[in-house]
Amino acid sequence: MGPLDYVSKSEIVHSYQSHGPITYSVKRPVRNLFSVKGTAVKMVALSFDFLVLNVLHIILVIVFQKYGVNERGADGKPKTDWYKITNEMFAVMSPLLVFFLVFYNNQAYNRYMEQFFIARKLEGIVKYITNRLRAHFRHDPFPGAEQSMREMLRTVIVAHYCLYLRLPRYTKRPIHDWGWDYLCKYGLVKKEEQAVLVGKSGPDIMGETLAFCLERLGQHVRYGHIDTLTFNAFEQDLHVMAGFIMSITAYANNPVPFAYYHLANLLTLGQLALLAYAFVFLDSYLTIVVFALLTIALLGLRDMSCALSDPFGVDDTDFQTMLPTARCHVDNEGLLSRDSVFGNA
Amino acid sequence: MGPLDYVSKSEIVHSYQSHGPITYSVKRPVRNLFSVKGTAVKMVALSFDFLVLNVLHIILVIVFQKYGVNERGADGKPKTDWYKITNEMFAVMSPLLVFFLVFYNNQAYNRYMEQFFIARKLEGIVKYITNRLRAHFRHDPFPGAEQSMREMLRTVIVAHYCLYLRLPRYTKRPIHDWGWDYLCKYGLVKKEEQAVLVGKSGPDIMGETLAFCLERLGQHVRYGHIDTLTFNAFEQDLHVMAGFIMSITAYANNPVPFAYYHLANLLTLGQLALLAYAFVFLDSYLTIVVFALLTIALLGLRDMSCALSDPFGVDDTDFQTMLPTARCHVDNEGLLSRDSVFGNA
Amino acid sequence: MGPLDYVSKSEIVHSYQSHGPITYSVKRPVRNLFSVKGTAVKMVALSFDFLVLNVLHIILVIVFQKYGVNERGADGKPKTDWYKITNEMFAVMSPLLVFFLVFYNNQAYNRYMEQFFIARKLEGIVKYITNRLRAHFRHDPFPGAEQSMREMLRTVIVAHYCLYLRLPRYTKRPIHDWGWDYLCKYGLVKKEEQAVLVGKSGPDIMGETLAFCLERLGQHVRYGHIDTLTFNAFEQDLHVMAGFIMSITAYANNPVPFAYYHLANLLTLGQLALLAYAFVFLDSYLTIVVFALLTIALLGLRDMSCALSDPFGVDDTDFQTMLPTARCHVDNEGLLSRDSVFGNA
Amino acid sequence: MGPLDYVSKSEIVHSYQSHGPITYSVKRPVRNLFSVKGTAVKMVALSFDFLVLNVLHIILVIVFQKYGVNERGADGKPKTDWYKITNEMFAVMSPLLVFFLVFYNNQAYNRYMEQFFIARKLEGIVKYITNRLRAHFRHDPFPGAEQSMREMLRTVIVAHYCLYLRLPRYTKRPIHDWGWDYLCKYGLVKKEEQAVLVGKSGPDIMGETLAFCLERLGQHVRYGHIDTLTFNAFEQDLHVMAGFIMSITAYANNPVPFAYYHLANLLTLGQLALLAYAFVFLDSYLTIVVFALLTIALLGLRDMSCALSDPFGVDDTDFQTMLPTARCHVDNEGLLSRDSVFGNA
Amino acid sequence: MGPLDYVSKSEIVHSYQSHGPITYSVKRPVRNLFSVKGTAVKMVALSFDFLVLNVLHIILVIVFQKYGVNERGADGKPKTDWYKITNEMFAVMSPLLVFFLVFYNNQAYNRYMEQFFIARKLEGIVKYITNRLRAHFRHDPFPGAEQSMREMLRTVIVAHYCLYLRLPRYTKRPIHDWGWDYLCKYGLVKKEEQAVLVGKSGPDIMGETLAFCLERLGQHVRYGHIDTLTFNAFEQDLHVMAGFIMSITAYANNPVPFAYYHLANLLTLGQLALLAYAFVFLDSYLTIVVFALLTIALLGLRDMSCALSDPFGVDDTDFQTMLPTARCHVDNEGLLSRDSVFGNA
Repeated sequence: MGPLDYVSKSEIVHSYQSHGPITYSVKRPVRNLFSVKGTAVKMVALSFDFLVLNVLHIILVIVFQKYGVNERGADGKPKTDWYKITNEMFAVMSPLLVFFLVFYNNQAYNRYMEQFFIARKLEGIVKYITNRLRAHFRHDPFPGAEQSMREMLRTVIVAHYCLYLRLPRYTKRPIHDWGWDYLCKYGLVKKEEQAVLVGKSGPDIMGETLAFCLERLGQHVRYGHIDTLTFNAFEQDLHVMAGFIMSITAYANNPVPFAYYHLANLLTLGQLALLAYAFVFLDSYLTIVVFALLTIALLGLRDMSCALSDPFGVDDTDFQTMLPTARCHVDNEGLLSRDSVFGNA
Repeated sequence: MGPLDYVSKSEIVHSYQSHGPITYSVKRPVRNLFSVKGTAVKMVALSFDFLVLNVLHIILVIVFQKYGVNERGADGKPKTDWYKITNEMFAVMSPLLVFFLVFYNNQAYNRYMEQFFIARKLEGIVKYITNRLRAHFRHDPFPGAEQSMREMLRTVIVAHYCLYLRLPRYTKRPIHDWGWDYLCKYGLVKKEEQAVLVGKSGPDIMGETLAFCLERLGQHVRYGHIDTLTFNAFEQDLHVMAGFIMSITAYANNPVPFAYYHLANLLTLGQLALLAYAFVFLDSYLTIVVFALLTIALLGLRDMSCALSDPFGVDDTDFQTMLPTARCHVDNEGLLSRDSVFGNA
Repeated sequence: MGPLDYVSKSEIVHSYQSHGPITYSVKRPVRNLFSVKGTAVKMVALSFDFLVLNVLHIILVIVFQKYGVNERGADGKPKTDWYKITNEMFAVMSPLLVFFLVFYNNQAYNRYMEQFFIARKLEGIVKYITNRLRAHFRHDPFPGAEQSMREMLRTVIVAHYCLYLRLPRYTKRPIHDWGWDYLCKYGLVKKEEQAVLVGKSGPDIMGETLAFCLERLGQHVRYGHIDTLTFNAFEQDLHVMAGFIMSITAYANNPVPFAYYHLANLLTLGQLALLAYAFVFLDSYLTIVVFALLTIALLGLRDMSCALSDPFGVDDTDFQTMLPTARCHVDNEGLLSRDSVFGNA
Repeated sequence: MGPLDYVSKSEIVHSYQSHGPITYSVKRPVRNLFSVKGTAVKMVALSFDFLVLNVLHIILVIVFQKYGVNERGADGKPKTDWYKITNEMFAVMSPLLVFFLVFYNNQAYNRYMEQFFIARKLEGIVKYITNRLRAHFRHDPFPGAEQSMREMLRTVIVAHYCLYLRLPRYTKRPIHDWGWDYLCKYGLVKKEEQAVLVGKSGPDIMGETLAFCLERLGQHVRYGHIDTLTFNAFEQDLHVMAGFIMSITAYANNPVPFAYYHLANLLTLGQLALLAYAFVFLDSYLTIVVFALLTIALLGLRDMSCALSDPFGVDDTDFQTMLPTARCHVDNEGLLSRDSVFGNA
Repeated sequence: MGPLDYVSKSEIVHSYQSHGPITYSVKRPVRNLFSVKGTAVKMVALSFDFLVLNVLHIILVIVFQKYGVNERGADGKPKTDWYKITNEMFAVMSPLLVFFLVFYNNQAYNRYMEQFFIARKLEGIVKYITNRLRAHFRHDPFPGAEQSMREMLRTVIVAHYCLYLRLPRYTKRPIHDWGWDYLCKYGLVKKEEQAVLVGKSGPDIMGETLAFCLERLGQHVRYGHIDTLTFNAFEQDLHVMAGFIMSITAYANNPVPFAYYHLANLLTLGQLALLAYAFVFLDSYLTIVVFALLTIALLGLRDMSCALSDPFGVDDTDFQTMLPTARCHVDNEGLLSRDSVFGNA
């Protein structure tokens, strides 16, 4: 069983990482409405704050209707001794909450898309390195060429896998140990290497790849096997690869600043708590429906922002990591030994 | 009949891909208003949710006027026992809906423009590769130069076509089979190649092009036909080309996250449903007109966002794919054999 | 008379292209207010939709005051049987209209600035190519160097002019024929070349320049006159130049998507029509003034967005094309034959 | 007295250019409030439109209270025959004004930051050129190396100074003549060069620098003193430098489009004039305070946008130009003759 | 004790720089609410303006209820002789305040993220330089190679440390002197070098590194030890490094323009002061709660923006500087003497 099959059939991978983004047809907006898998509705509906806020509102409505209304005016409006909170008090706070949340969500969405494309470009870089190795080292144009080619690609593939294995989301889960076993099993990492690498961060492991490949390539330059231009082209790609690995690791280690998240959270929960009380004076049982939709929307926006800004986890909005990396690994390793579909060159 | 004529006259292409963006004169805003082809109005007007919401509103208005109004106060305002929903309940939800939809639309518009320019730049890259091939390989400066030139350009053109052929929107339609037949008919793909390529994604097919061209170029470097600088220039362009193909494929396979779309959809439909009821209390038959315009605007914005974020499909907002690719193919293939208009060099 | 004088004195150029952006002093905001040349006020004030909307509103106000008001309440408010439209119905539509228009305007402004800078950078690239030609080919360091230098620069300058000549805005106007005559008159284009070029798009003409220059440079490389690094530097600049020409042409051929424009237009005119009626109930002749300002602002924003997103036309917001291109042409051609102001090198 | 002292002590420089951005401590928000130097408050407080609007409002309030109020209702609200303007009429215009101004301000802020960093990067490029000159030409590794080094750096420094000297803001002021005298005095420009350069724009002067340096470097390549890679590296930096000079000049010659500014101005002044009247009906002398704050905010935002979008002038928000350029000049000229602090290499 | 231990155990570093961003789990939004460390709540709650505004409001509420209310109408609404301020007066100012603050915050957030990634990329560049030094100079492939390698890396590491040491936030604190002692103690800077460097800015110190390394590398080129391609690759990385150091220093020396901050501050405090009075007329003791939340939100947003736009300080939102730089220093210095984990090359 090749590594791709092994990964795609692994129970551990199945349980501890996302199954990939949900696809949907925009042609069926109404039916989509009732598909809550991976949506903000699912994130929110059973959350503590959603339930507390809505139960609070319902209780307040009932109590107000029963004990709060002294009498009703000629226009049917209730008279009460309860201290009022009215919309007028929120003339600044409401747009502030809305803007802040939407901008926060926009930032999170940008993080999400940026990391998604970094992951794709990273796979591209590994492919570029593989193809350059093929062009210069395949069929042993100088002694030891094929061996160097395979040794260098191995370190590149290990760095690719380890980016994800060493993300904080993974290191504390069984998938982490599974991952190291897997790398050993398929000969990518030796036991004594694992002992050292397991204590390093993703970018540090990439640093080892960089050190190995550049020193090896430098030797080939000195022996006259390749020229400096080719050395520089490999170096450039390895730098870009290291930059991508740094970016994803840096994003994962540095969430949206706590002060930012906290203010968004405070404003959301603070205003919702006040609204749970203020809506009572609107004197209609239907505020229960409106308030429920409003809490779903606001808490959903907050939670979706959190989920989007960290796209390599286990949520339904997250991207797969092990499977595409294994596919990339298998494809590129295979490419070293075979001709292009378009014929041998 | 050359490939360009064949494509431009094909019934299949005509039926299964966009006819290109609609041009219009901004000088006639009022007349444009009644041209609904390719607009959000056309997308929305016959949709299920538009009809349901508006019929619901009309029924509610009529029922309210007939049975809901108990009496009218001195100021003419209706008195009713119906539970009210008022604008005050939407003080947070209305701006949230508006902002979220407009930001969503903005993201979709950016995706649209980005993919449009990637498609144009991709055509540019193919032209750059062709011109560099001409400069270094034309008129057989070394044995086999012209043949290598044509073989490499063929694989580049195949990768260009296959980007679009292998997009999810096309693979499930008759245009897909038509496309492979077309590639075989004009000698771009051999039958045995097709058998393999048809199972690969656009980026993977580009990977084969990369593997073929780089290995071939590497041989020419070893034979001293070209130098490493020229190898690197070709490699650079092929990498950029692979990056563009990856981007468009990645966008097509990864729509706006479902959670994002779902929240936009939920907020839109949820608030419209509530407004269909709330507008009843505004006590004017004209709410029917206003509500219709509002539903067109909101649902139209939602649906236009979906359409814009996926620009290589069959909608009226979409771009053509086969025709410009065929034009690019014919132009570049022709350029290999002829002098520039500005004279032979 | 040199080409620059010829262009700057041409009646045709004077009539059929913009006179360049209006300069103004921000120190005099109030005086600027009454300078309507090139403003949204001028675009809107005599337009059909502006007049219809305002006349409609004035008529409605007069009719309402005369026939619509049955009596006035104790608070002076009118009582009427007319079906009402109130601001409450616009609680979602008003911010939607505003946001959408401002985002649309923002996109248009970005297109405007981007194209402006592309035009400037394009002039820069032509200058860079000229200076590299001077450095490597001037004073005939090898046989035929000066001739190659002049022949290549000619094709670059032709591509620069043709970018603008072949824009849709120009091809249908007398300036187009004038332009080709001009290019022939000053020896930039031969009659037999014109016959072919006039049927090609701007990017395609640049493609011919690319084909000519690269093949010529490739020959000089093979003869050992220049090295591959110099070839690559020219190639790189020609690619960037081709990219700029593609961008401006692509923008000009692809306006803001019709669906986008249409929705903005529909929302604007739809809401203004409703407001023309709704304002009647505000019961004040001063709504006529407010409505006039509002229509100027909204229609002006819409029309300014259209004008900004297409900056190489004949509007007052547009940039000049022929004159700066001619200046660039004359400067660079002159530079081939003279020393730098800083002394001969 | 070296050039840096000369510039920093010059009366002319002191009077005709900004003293640099104001530094402040964010720890003292309340105290900062009363520091109006360089703020929108200072820009606005004595401006014609601010005074007219506020005097108008005060007169209207007094006249209304004296003659406009016929009687007061039971709720204390005034009854009047004056035609009313109410907030309801501004339901679309108010958010439009706010958004448009804030987006305008955002664009201006981006221009400001972009130009600031271009100025810094330009200094960086001059330093990079200096250091490369040192590495390849210092200590006369080939005959005439040191002389070429100094001659080329001179032209680069002249182009740096002339970027600012030839900006429209400077050419009409005494600092312009002072600048040319200064360049002659310190031997950067010869009298006969000045006669030609003074009629050229900043980018054109940079064009002369480019022509001189590339031709000189091309000769060194032909003599075998340096290789093409080094030529290309110099050329690349000179291109980037020319691009920066073009950008700042293009920004300075092309303010925000007049139509854009005019619409912002019209909306601001139009709505403020209407509000000066409308606030009267709010029937409170405190509208005078609120209206004053509102005019400061709106006019201040408009004027700050204008100031930010043109950062190389004489305002308090502007950046210094002569002083940092002189510092860059002195540092780099000195570096040609001395070892690094870290020892001789 | 190695430098990393020394730094991580230093009392001075502990007291005078940030402990790094706070990590948090988004799974516990309600519990996070009560964790105020490093949040806007903590910044604001004890600030002068927060306390003054809220005490003012409470006093006004009490005074109004006691002396301001003459009588109450049939609807329970208070009648008063106090001049009123109502929400209607803020119809423009409220959204202006909200937008301006949120855009300001967005700009600050972008500065924050940009500087964070520059710091990470800077560490990457140092690693890239180290690895290239290793590849070309390790194991003394030519005489003096190892010594050059170590001397050059020393100057690079010094420039890295000095970026932070010379930031305005640090130069006035004990950590500055501690830093220079530390650099001397670990042999990075000699006493006589310190005497010169301590008067220079971060970018100027980087300039010395640039001058040293390029002159040394230029010598190696002249001796034929390395080729120009390798020289250019080092030069390129040193330029990028210099650009990063310039950026962070320029940001630190140029806060958000004072006019911008002042207007944000004026609007915030001005409107809050007016609201402290206006809320009195809403006639509910609960305005005290709402007003408190509102002041926390608005002042918090203002102060968080200030904190985010200057991320290398001592706040809880700030990033560490000495510790990651020391880690980078130790890792790279160590790498010069050891093989990669993946084996010797």
